[in-house]
Amino acid sequence: MHDLDSMFFPKSVAVVGVSNDGMGGGTGFFNRLIKGGYPGKVYPVNPKMTEVQGQKAYPSVSAIPETPDLVIMGIPATAVADALRDCIAAGVKNVHIFSSGFTETGEEKGRILDREITAIIKNSDLRVVGPNCMGIYVPKSNLAPWGNTPKGSGPLAFISQSGGHGQLITEFAQTLGIYFSKVISFGNARGLGAYDFLEYLKTDPDTKIISCYFEGMTDGNRVTRLIREINHTKPVIVWKGGLTESGARAIASHTGSLAGETKVWDAFYAQTGAIRAESQEEILGVTQLFLHSSPPKGRRVLVFAGGGGNSVALSDTCSREGLVVPHISEETRQELNKMIRLEGNSVRNPLDIFSVHFDLKTFSRVLELVSADPMIDMILINRSVSDPENGMFHTDTTAEKRINEYIIEFAKKNADKIPLAIALNIHSHRPSPANSAAKVWLEFAEAGVPVFGSTTSAARAISRYISYHEFQAKEKARN
Amino acid sequence: MHDLDSMFFPKSVAVVGVSNDGMGGGTGFFNRLIKGGYPGKVYPVNPKMTEVQGQKAYPSVSAIPETPDLVIMGIPATAVADALRDCIAAGVKNVHIFSSGFTETGEEKGRILDREITAIIKNSDLRVVGPNCMGIYVPKSNLAPWGNTPKGSGPLAFISQSGGHGQLITEFAQTLGIYFSKVISFGNARGLGAYDFLEYLKTDPDTKIISCYFEGMTDGNRVTRLIREINHTKPVIVWKGGLTESGARAIASHTGSLAGETKVWDAFYAQTGAIRAESQEEILGVTQLFLHSSPPKGRRVLVFAGGGGNSVALSDTCSREGLVVPHISEETRQELNKMIRLEGNSVRNPLDIFSVHFDLKTFSRVLELVSADPMIDMILINRSVSDPENGMFHTDTTAEKRINEYIIEFAKKNADKIPLAIALNIHSHRPSPANSAAKVWLEFAEAGVPVFGSTTSAARAISRYISYHEFQAKEKARN
Repeated sequence: MHDLDSMFFPKSVAVVGVSNDGMGGGTGFFNRLIKGGYPGKVYPVNPKMTEVQGQKAYPSVSAIPETPDLVIMGIPATAVADALRDCIAAGVKNVHIFSSGFTETGEEKGRILDREITAIIKNSDLRVVGPNCMGIYVPKSNLAPWGNTPKGSGPLAFISQSGGHGQLITEFAQTLGIYFSKVISFGNARGLGAYDFLEYLKTDPDTKIISCYFEGMTDGNRVTRLIREINHTKPVIVWKGGLTESGARAIASHTGSLAGETKVWDAFYAQTGAIRAESQEEILGVTQLFLHSSPPKGRRVLVFAGGGGNSVALSDTCSREGLVVPHISEETRQELNKMIRLEGNSVRNPLDIFSVHFDLKTFSRVLELVSADPMIDMILINRSVSDPENGMFHTDTTAEKRINEYIIEFAKKNADKIPLAIALNIHSHRPSPANSAAKVWLEFAEAGVPVFGSTTSAARAISRYISYHEFQAKEKARN
Repeated sequence: MHDLDSMFFPKSVAVVGVSNDGMGGGTGFFNRLIKGGYPGKVYPVNPKMTEVQGQKAYPSVSAIPETPDLVIMGIPATAVADALRDCIAAGVKNVHIFSSGFTETGEEKGRILDREITAIIKNSDLRVVGPNCMGIYVPKSNLAPWGNTPKGSGPLAFISQSGGHGQLITEFAQTLGIYFSKVISFGNARGLGAYDFLEYLKTDPDTKIISCYFEGMTDGNRVTRLIREINHTKPVIVWKGGLTESGARAIASHTGSLAGETKVWDAFYAQTGAIRAESQEEILGVTQLFLHSSPPKGRRVLVFAGGGGNSVALSDTCSREGLVVPHISEETRQELNKMIRLEGNSVRNPLDIFSVHFDLKTFSRVLELVSADPMIDMILINRSVSDPENGMFHTDTTAEKRINEYIIEFAKKNADKIPLAIALNIHSHRPSPANSAAKVWLEFAEAGVPVFGSTTSAARAISRYISYHEFQAKEKARN
């Protein structure tokens, strides 16, 4: 059993800074533990109260009759040092400090408090997450004191110096049918840091894919070596914030980290083969491919689309993101010519065959034909979303639904033969089509077909997914 | 009166290729003219019928008792040459050829037909739009035979070698409260081309902003000079498709154009100062700023946000798009410090003040304070959208609405003092928040406050808007 298991799967949690009026910094954590169905014992701590929300409150952690496996601190920065000493006295091992007000404030007062708590942590056996962070979110143990209430647990881990990024990703992910093993928001990292969490996740049987949001990095060489090693077996996706001058300034105000230079981080990506991302959506985009798609043999993508100008735009986008939109083979083209009227269509790549998007029979024949073409490594379907309230885009929704169902079936049946992804084409910002798009999105996502809200995000994710496999193939050849 | 006025404001239109079974290529155009309330006379033409949809049909254009101002042809490519000769015989001046099946097919048959019709056009007085295009859309004359039924006419013109782009932009635009003077889809450009339309729009009193989608360009030097000239008084936004290898190939299949080299087009943008765009949304994004925003004095943007990681991401995005997120002045910071709790917030730039987004009183005091800061040229508000079905983001929607109303009022009152734009923060792909986001979007758009679905699109539009003004200032200084 790993040291950190008692932190991720605690049998009891104490929350310091819980009140009845909702003002205590720990109150939100306390409420969510209860609401989220956390099965262990939860102890509210507040020296000024004997009862909090109907539960007996304790004046300190050391006053609790058992030693809680995890202590969450939501108290003023000035009270953290004493609370840590109390935890040490009580024999506590795992502490999450939510409190902020340290170096990140840029004020001398915060820096002094920071030095004080850092010294206490370093001279103790405490395993501390934070301060200035949201802490730990483990759906499997129903430990979800922040973020979206988990509907399930899954293979993705996210370690993040931003609590906001952590919270948002839990929401975005669930709408793509992606679930987490662990989400760890670790803020200023005065105790445990990236290395410790990565070391745990490396052998964590519940984690298959690791994503990270870093602002700074202490111990960079060791983390780099570890990520390179892990990346051979578990893909590591890294979002590095603050790689611009303005971003680096924002980092100083956020976690007080040093952002580091762009060239250092370029070298990091080049050495580790870690997958780049720049948002929650980009992390989840490439995760969809790792979860649901076999690796394409190469960068040649068949774009199944409609509309001539649209085909040009799709080609430009794929090309800019590093994919190739090649000629299909002459044999395939001749077969397509037999099915598709020449006027107003193009049976080149992209397939500009608008009417076929509402004609299941032809759609399925075309898809089967092109997916067998040896010139093609992957299929990207640019799928329009109809708009029930607008004449121009009010297409045959029954046909649309049947074709979507067919695509899902095809993708599953052919998962090992040819990877397939969907880029939705959304025509409007009005509520009605936004609603339709969200429904179609869920339909594909829940069925495990990689789906994207734009061709740019689809092509970028596919390109990075391929880059990962190219890097690993080179690594293998070298060793 | 300009020659092309009779094309844009025709008193009568003949549609060649109209049938009762919906199969004729002109039927859709015919139906939309009727449905869209086009007030002039509409003549269906079909040599095999005496009546089409209850209206007397004519065997040819020359058989119509008057000479129609505009003829729309939706017939097979092989029939176009004869129909053109018939138009010449009838004394017709303006023709839109919807029919495709020419050079863009890549087949010898199409090339022969193309040469034939090109010769007829060149040796006649016909003003021809097309072939292989959607033609003309003029809300002011209720001439809307394709695209979204116009809810109004407005100052934006769009000339496009893609009919699909033209159709989609009419839908996107209306959801941003942007309306068109003219949309012209001109496809293969065998008669009228970019130069002719630009020459018309230059002096068109209904057009204040001109946007273009080009695939190829004949007569490049002349068009470049004209765009540079027009751009001094009417901003010209140019989306050039096919600037990648794959995109150029797609163009050959679409309008049969030669895409041209990237360096040639880079020179075009550098010489003309035309505003770059790569999608309908990018065209409309920068158009919002031209319509509703005074030019910022410089590139220094104040980002009004919430969340530390979010602030880093916003800074990185602004910086990558060419904006600066500077320090605010020490005076402003000290004033903010008096209103905002230090812990968990940052009163630097970006303003990381999450709780203030639901507190009208503080929100308005902060906004008024920072907008008066001399270090700031523009304000970008990163505004979250709450989610009625999700506890985590179910914030106070009443407060949210009141703050949105306040922002709208503030933006209007201070339009000349400090430009302001909104970037929505959307947390999910689920229908309920998608719906909320669409509603908030419309709220701002209808009030004339520039609004964007992501910070990337906001920052990109702002940066291009500033570049336009920088270019024109240099031009002015030189002349």
